[in-house]
Parts: sequence; structure tokens; C-alpha cells
Amino acid sequence: MAISVTCIAPVNIAIVKYCKHWSGGKRDDDLILPINDSISVTLSTDHLRTKTTITASPELTKNVLRLNGVEESFENPRIQRCLLEVQKKAKSSGKCPKPEMLEWKIRVESENNFPTAAGLASSAAGYACFVYTLATLYGIEDEELSGIARMGSGSACRSLHSGYVQWVMGEREDGADSLAVQVAPATAWPNMHVLILVVNDRKKATASTQGMSTSVKTSELLKHRAEKCVPQRIEQLKKAIAEHDFETFGRIAMTDSNQFHGVCLDTYPPCFYMNDVSRQIVRLVHEINNMAGFIKVAYSFDAGPNACLFLLEKDVVEVSAIVRRAFPFNHCQEADYYKGIPNDEAAMAAVPEKVLNTFSVEEPNQLRYIIHTKVGEGPRRVE
Amino acid sequence: MAISVTCIAPVNIAIVKYCKHWSGGKRDDDLILPINDSISVTLSTDHLRTKTTITASPELTKNVLRLNGVEESFENPRIQRCLLEVQKKAKSSGKCPKPEMLEWKIRVESENNFPTAAGLASSAAGYACFVYTLATLYGIEDEELSGIARMGSGSACRSLHSGYVQWVMGEREDGADSLAVQVAPATAWPNMHVLILVVNDRKKATASTQGMSTSVKTSELLKHRAEKCVPQRIEQLKKAIAEHDFETFGRIAMTDSNQFHGVCLDTYPPCFYMNDVSRQIVRLVHEINNMAGFIKVAYSFDAGPNACLFLLEKDVVEVSAIVRRAFPFNHCQEADYYKGIPNDEAAMAAVPEKVLNTFSVEEPNQLRYIIHTKVGEGPRRVE
Repeated sequence: MAISVTCIAPVNIAIVKYCKHWSGGKRDDDLILPINDSISVTLSTDHLRTKTTITASPELTKNVLRLNGVEESFENPRIQRCLLEVQKKAKSSGKCPKPEMLEWKIRVESENNFPTAAGLASSAAGYACFVYTLATLYGIEDEELSGIARMGSGSACRSLHSGYVQWVMGEREDGADSLAVQVAPATAWPNMHVLILVVNDRKKATASTQGMSTSVKTSELLKHRAEKCVPQRIEQLKKAIAEHDFETFGRIAMTDSNQFHGVCLDTYPPCFYMNDVSRQIVRLVHEINNMAGFIKVAYSFDAGPNACLFLLEKDVVEVSAIVRRAFPFNHCQEADYYKGIPNDEAAMAAVPEKVLNTFSVEEPNQLRYIIHTKVGEGPRRVE
Repeated sequence: MAISVTCIAPVNIAIVKYCKHWSGGKRDDDLILPINDSISVTLSTDHLRTKTTITASPELTKNVLRLNGVEESFENPRIQRCLLEVQKKAKSSGKCPKPEMLEWKIRVESENNFPTAAGLASSAAGYACFVYTLATLYGIEDEELSGIARMGSGSACRSLHSGYVQWVMGEREDGADSLAVQVAPATAWPNMHVLILVVNDRKKATASTQGMSTSVKTSELLKHRAEKCVPQRIEQLKKAIAEHDFETFGRIAMTDSNQFHGVCLDTYPPCFYMNDVSRQIVRLVHEINNMAGFIKVAYSFDAGPNACLFLLEKDVVEVSAIVRRAFPFNHCQEADYYKGIPNDEAAMAAVPEKVLNTFSVEEPNQLRYIIHTKVGEGPRRVE
């Protein structure tokens, strides 16, 4: 009698960052509403993805949740909320092929192919995958689901779409218009590549939810950012995406990342996500761009020390060679250090020593590994 | 015929930080004018000071400058400007006992008893000492000198006074009203103590002048800070100093330090002064305060990774014991690690293990040394 569905969902990285609305405000904290629009890039599920299997069965006596092989409590109010909202939508849509299954308990098994809680947006991919898989199980995967995923983890709403995605903050008190919409598909700008530099870090100093809600409570700069800085960046970034203007895209990515982390610092107590290795990466990127005389590569940091570098296909070989030179390693095999899209090793070996020698070499093993990936598709069912 | 004078001048640390006015603005860059008022604490010259000897002689054929035993160029426009302005003031005052010496060349020998350019405000103490020593040589040490020291290095103007000092930004285009004034003498709050945690750091990533002028050019948050956040902090801090309200003093010190560094990050390229060790210190201070349930100790970071901790005399023993436990060392002798005011070692040994064990111990040698000092006096002549 059991019915089972498996789906995957992507990670996304915000180019213009989201900050959560303060719970003391008018709009409900449980709804996870932002104080400004954000725009993200969905990364390819070929390299980073959550995979979730949900089984509904009349024989289950309780809901079960397993994350990366470890049983977790289903009592989490955000999980409960998402489950309830998807079931409500399935009922009202009348699309569920087997309506009685809406009353059955479920078993959820979810796993990431990347480190959980390492600032790689695992909760975004996780909640997006949970909501999408559940919706697929109930036959409503074509409905608007981003508002439900948002109630799991704010930025999860953006992981429901492919390519370049805007989370419109909305105006309604009930959050019904705070939804993610696609700005452009992944295919619209096919030569956009991404290098993720995963920093060797013991653990996150501050959980991001905690960090962000502190920010809104105490930062005097955050409101100014949300009201004055972000709206014009959103418009400039949408134009840059439409026109394939990498210079503007890269400049906004870097300035917004820096402003976000600056605002995180302007809290009490302050909230730090970047560390000394993050700063070495920032310095390297600016050196590469200064040398080029234009923006060849841009960084963005989310709620952790790892860097997401954006660059065009034509520059992947040179930038990868520089990054490899600057961040040597001996703590693992080459195949475990360079992940994702295979680079053209012959072309990389041909990058002149003169270019590589310009950059200072950091201590070995500052990075755990490097993932070469691209902008990619949204969630989908797999078998 | 040679006439020689030796003076010392203190370091100061800002509680509400200063940011420089952008050169593209209306007010002259060379004048070093701030975009907001700042308030600092002058540290005791018993432990940190610049000592400068200036010799004027008709036999010198050119001006000579030696910093920490190394000859430097006198061509530096800021040195030139300060020299010219002091000589101008000496002439117009008519106080110089030997007016012909105003035409003589000078030899300047200056040395710090702390690391230069390590984020310990060496340029502030240096320019304050240069201007004060020169003024003493010319017999005008009682004149208003802060406006001249300001043209050497902005925050140098605050090192001309003892205790708690406000640099009033002023309004005039020529900067004539941008001066430092005393808010309260050092003796007014005698139980205020200071621990300086000097971080083991290779070198500063960004020179502070460069960092700050970048900030004003590109940070969208800085203007908001200067116009909306700082004015009320200045008033609150003056009141806290007058009332010996350490809770407010400490809270403002920490929030303003964090906001300053947040604004530094919100530049393009970003400007980082704090490092991973600075962040360990921040975390430790918040842990100590959380445990106490009130603000027992407060940090402030200037343009470098070193922390300045403020605390009341009654808490010195316990906080010092915690800091020593959290930051062990084996790279030098104890006498070279614990500098400044001798601590009561018997009392420190009596701090319960239960208290000390609450705090996590960092890797050894994260700090170079710790200086225990107090709020202190302004510049003075020595023999």
C-alpha cells in the first residue's frame, strides 16, 4: 500500500542577500518574511543537491525523519508547518490521485551530497526538496510552492526555480505574496560558471538563523540597507542578467556580499561568518581583477566562510589555475580536492608561470576542496 | 648654539570612532576633517608612549627625521605641514624666546615603546608628540595645538589631552573649528582600567589611511552612520562618562567598534582590520558578560587586530585571570607577556578553577603580549 517518491533539489546562493524581518514587527515571525527582495543563482544539481525520499503508508504509526542517515525529531515546528501547508494545498486543489493518503503518516529520508550546516545553504536545499517531494507525492508539484518552502527556511523558496531567481518580499501581512519567481532560466546565460571554495573550518561560529534575527533586532545600518541600498541593486542586477553584463553582475555580487557581512557585524553581539581564509580569498579575487583591469571573477559569501566565485567560461582555466596555485593542499587526493566539472588540465598546465607567480601562495590546506559547477535547474523527480 | 627639547605623548583609543571626510567633498583632504565627532580615551604614558627629541641648530643644513632609529624622509607633506603651522603660530604669538631659531633647521628623533603600525595608534601618538615637542621648543606649548596635530594624522589631535577627549568635527571649510577638547580628566574616573591584547599578526592587511579614505568613497552605510547613529552615541557616551556609568560606556564601546568595522567591510574593495584572533577575543568578552549578567568588560578595535579591553578596577583580577587562561603562551618569558601595571598574582591565583574552566582555551601564542594600563595624561616635557 505504501507510496514512495524521490526528488532532488538544488542549493542557491544569493547575489543580493536576504535578511529576515524582525519577529517583533507586524509580520509574523513564523512566516519567515524578508525585509528586502533578494536575487539568487540556482546551482547545478549535478554537483550539489539534496535528495529526499518520502514514503506515505497507512501502516506507519508516526511521522519519521532521517537526515543524512540520522533520525531527527519530526516535532520541528517548521517541518510541521510545511507538511500541513502542502497537505492543505493538496486537499483544496483536488488533484491528489489518492486523497486518503493525505491522512497517512510519512517517512522522510533526506541526504545532501555536500557538508550540512557548512554555510552551503543546506537548509534551503533541504526544505525545498522536502516541500517539492511531498507535493509530487500528492500530485501538486505544479502548484505555487515557494511560499510554503519559505516557511521552512526563508531562502528555500528560491531553490524551487532554476537559473536566476528573485524572492519578492511582498506586502501582505499573511506573507501570501512573498514568493520566488524566475528572473531568467539557467540556459539564458550558459557561459556563467561557478567555483565553490569550501574552507577548512571547524564549525560555524553562529547559526545563521540566530545571526540574522539578531541583526534585525539591533543593527542600525540594516534598515538603511534594506530601504535605500537594496532596491536599486535589485533593478541593476536584473538588468545585468538580462544583458549578460558580467562586470555589473560581479560588482553587485561583491558589494552586496560585503555589505551583508558588514551589517552582520553591526549587531550586538556581532555576528561573524567570514574568517581569515575567506579574507585571503577576497584579497586574491581583487588582485586577479586589478591585474586584469576588469572584473574577471567575483565572490559571494553566505552564512559561512566558504566562497562562491562567479566567472565566465572563457576565464575558468586561468582563474582555476591561480586558485590552485594560491591554495595548495596535501591533506587529500587530487580527485577529492577538485570536484565537479572536470577542468581542461592541459590548458591549465599551459597558464604561464609569470601569471601564476604574481600571486602569493597561502599555507597548505586552507581549503577543504573546490567544486567547479554551473548555474542549474530546479527540483525534479528522480527514480 | 643648538637647542633641544624632549617630550612624550600618549596613544589614544576611540570609543566612538572617527571616519575621514572624503577628499572629493567640499572640505580639503589635506586638512584631515572627519565626517562625525569622535570620543577617545588617552592611555597612560607609563606604558605606551612616543618620545620625541627635537634639536634646532643654525648649523644644520637640512631637516632630519629619525623614527625608531631609522632615518626617514622629511619630504612627507604631513610632516611639512605640521612644521609650517607650528612655526606660523610661534611667529604670530610673539612668544618664541629666540625668534631666529624659527629659521633654523631641525633634527627630529622619535621612538615608540610599542610596535609601530600595529594598529596601536602609533601615528596619533607620533604626530601629537612631534607637534607638542616643536611647540615646546618654540615656547608655545600652551597654545591650541590640536588643529595642527590633526593635519598630521586625524586622531593625533585627541592625543594632546588627558583623560576622555572629544574631537569636535566642526563646520568651517578651513577646518579651524575641528579641534579636540577634554570631556573629563583621567582623574575623574580613576578606577577605569585597560587591558591591551596585542595579537600575533604578521602585518596589517590594509594601511588605515587607505582603508578609511576608501570607506568614505564607496560605503553607502557610512553616511547613515555619521548622520544618524553617531550624534546620539556621542551624547550618551558623554553622559556615561560624567555619571561613571560603565554599563553604557561598555555597550557604546562595543557597538561602535562593531559598526565601524562593519562599515569598513561595506567598501569596495572591502577593508578588514579584525582577524580570527580578534573574533576569539570578542567571543570571550561576550561570554564573560553573559556569565556576569552585566557588562564587566568591553572591547574596542582600532585599525588593526589588537583589542583594547575596558574594565573597572574591581574586575581586573578576575578578567585578567580568564584572559590568561583563554590565551596561553610559550613563545616568550612571562615578564615579556604580561606588561604594564603588575597584577595581584596572589589574588589571581585565587580565582576559582570553576570560573576559569567555563571558558574555552585557544591555541597557544595567539597573543604577542598583554599590557595592563589605565587612562592617563596628555603630552609633557621630559628630561
